[in-house]
Amino acid sequence: MNKIESKLIELGIELPEVPKPVANYIPAKRTGNLIYIAGQIPIEKGIIQKGKLGKDITLKESKYATKLCAIGCLAAIKTICPLDKVTSIVAIHGLVNSTSENTEQADAMNGASDFIVQVFGEIGKHTRTAVGVSVPHNIAASVYMIVEIED
Amino acid sequence: MNKIESKLIELGIELPEVPKPVANYIPAKRTGNLIYIAGQIPIEKGIIQKGKLGKDITLKESKYATKLCAIGCLAAIKTICPLDKVTSIVAIHGLVNSTSENTEQADAMNGASDFIVQVFGEIGKHTRTAVGVSVPHNIAASVYMIVEIED
Amino acid sequence: MNKIESKLIELGIELPEVPKPVANYIPAKRTGNLIYIAGQIPIEKGIIQKGKLGKDITLKESKYATKLCAIGCLAAIKTICPLDKVTSIVAIHGLVNSTSENTEQADAMNGASDFIVQVFGEIGKHTRTAVGVSVPHNIAASVYMIVEIED
Repeated sequence: MNKIESKLIELGIELPEVPKPVANYIPAKRTGNLIYIAGQIPIEKGIIQKGKLGKDITLKESKYATKLCAIGCLAAIKTICPLDKVTSIVAIHGLVNSTSENTEQADAMNGASDFIVQVFGEIGKHTRTAVGVSVPHNIAASVYMIVEIED
Repeated sequence: MNKIESKLIELGIELPEVPKPVANYIPAKRTGNLIYIAGQIPIEKGIIQKGKLGKDITLKESKYATKLCAIGCLAAIKTICPLDKVTSIVAIHGLVNSTSENTEQADAMNGASDFIVQVFGEIGKHTRTAVGVSVPHNIAASVYMIVEIED
Repeated sequence: MNKIESKLIELGIELPEVPKPVANYIPAKRTGNLIYIAGQIPIEKGIIQKGKLGKDITLKESKYATKLCAIGCLAAIKTICPLDKVTSIVAIHGLVNSTSENTEQADAMNGASDFIVQVFGEIGKHTRTAVGVSVPHNIAASVYMIVEIED
């Protein structure tokens, strides 16, 4: 079994089925040595996590949602490439569903950032953005990534 | 005439003049085999589509606005490269002008996604984000893309 | 002394210390000939600029904040590469902290765009997005870039 898959098992993480896109887009696409990942949403045991930080859900819940999004990104990568081929997590962008007044989006995004570095170690250290917006269908967060892979 | 241009004519789509940037930025820029496209706005017959989804405009109008943005992205690509050189639509990012409470941004962005796949077919399938924000000047949407082109 | 550094001195710009990331992310990361920069915030003499355009701060202040973010991006590039190695500013993304009703985000982002072209000249002309969102910790703006560098 490969290294990253083993790490995920050690952490008790099971990658979800990648949700079948409901439109003309796909979970991940390769160009050269980069994989672009579509915005992934937080799903656990088939349940989509919803609600706005600052109104419906707590920081702890929002942070957990971004971690679930990051898990979804790994599942998206696997649709085109084994996870052990990843040589660098280049960028992680966090779209946090939150009220206009809320200011905790960076803390919320640590759910995704910490998880990725826990799994990938040094190559998992990434550039990042975190921003408060309205995520479609009132979903708690959407996270997308750009990762580099081996030839 | 090239294939993509023919397809656009078949669909009755005329690419607009790319608006002259009003600042120190440009509609499209190439790096390696990728073209980055600046956020394009919905313009039809010289009229910019304005208003917020959830308050001023309907889902149907917002969806049409993202399609106009996608048409603008093709015009932006053409400023540096014939459309037939495009080998992959890698990523489409949709910034939908909407109220904090609105949740229909993904549906709105299908206007752009469906159009791009209609024009490019299989290579047009893309990774995507859709998000509710405030677009400058209360413009209905802004869409930007990253596309791969031939050497 | 190299050309870009000289230009910065001529403009009276001193690059700040890059803030030590408070999480598992880094200011800049290279992949191939591209450098991705994490969202940089406006800091002057150690003070982070805060407030929302349309409520707490003026357009002039927001515009100055995006310039400070752009200065932060140059400091971030310098953590991995001398500024003279930059061959193209490919994309600049502006996340402007603003109220839902505010519509001045493009004007605000000219603070960043104009500065970058002032420093880099023709190769500094870039694709751009500007959007109104909630920036974490109520910080006035966050700007991230993708730049191309020499081999």
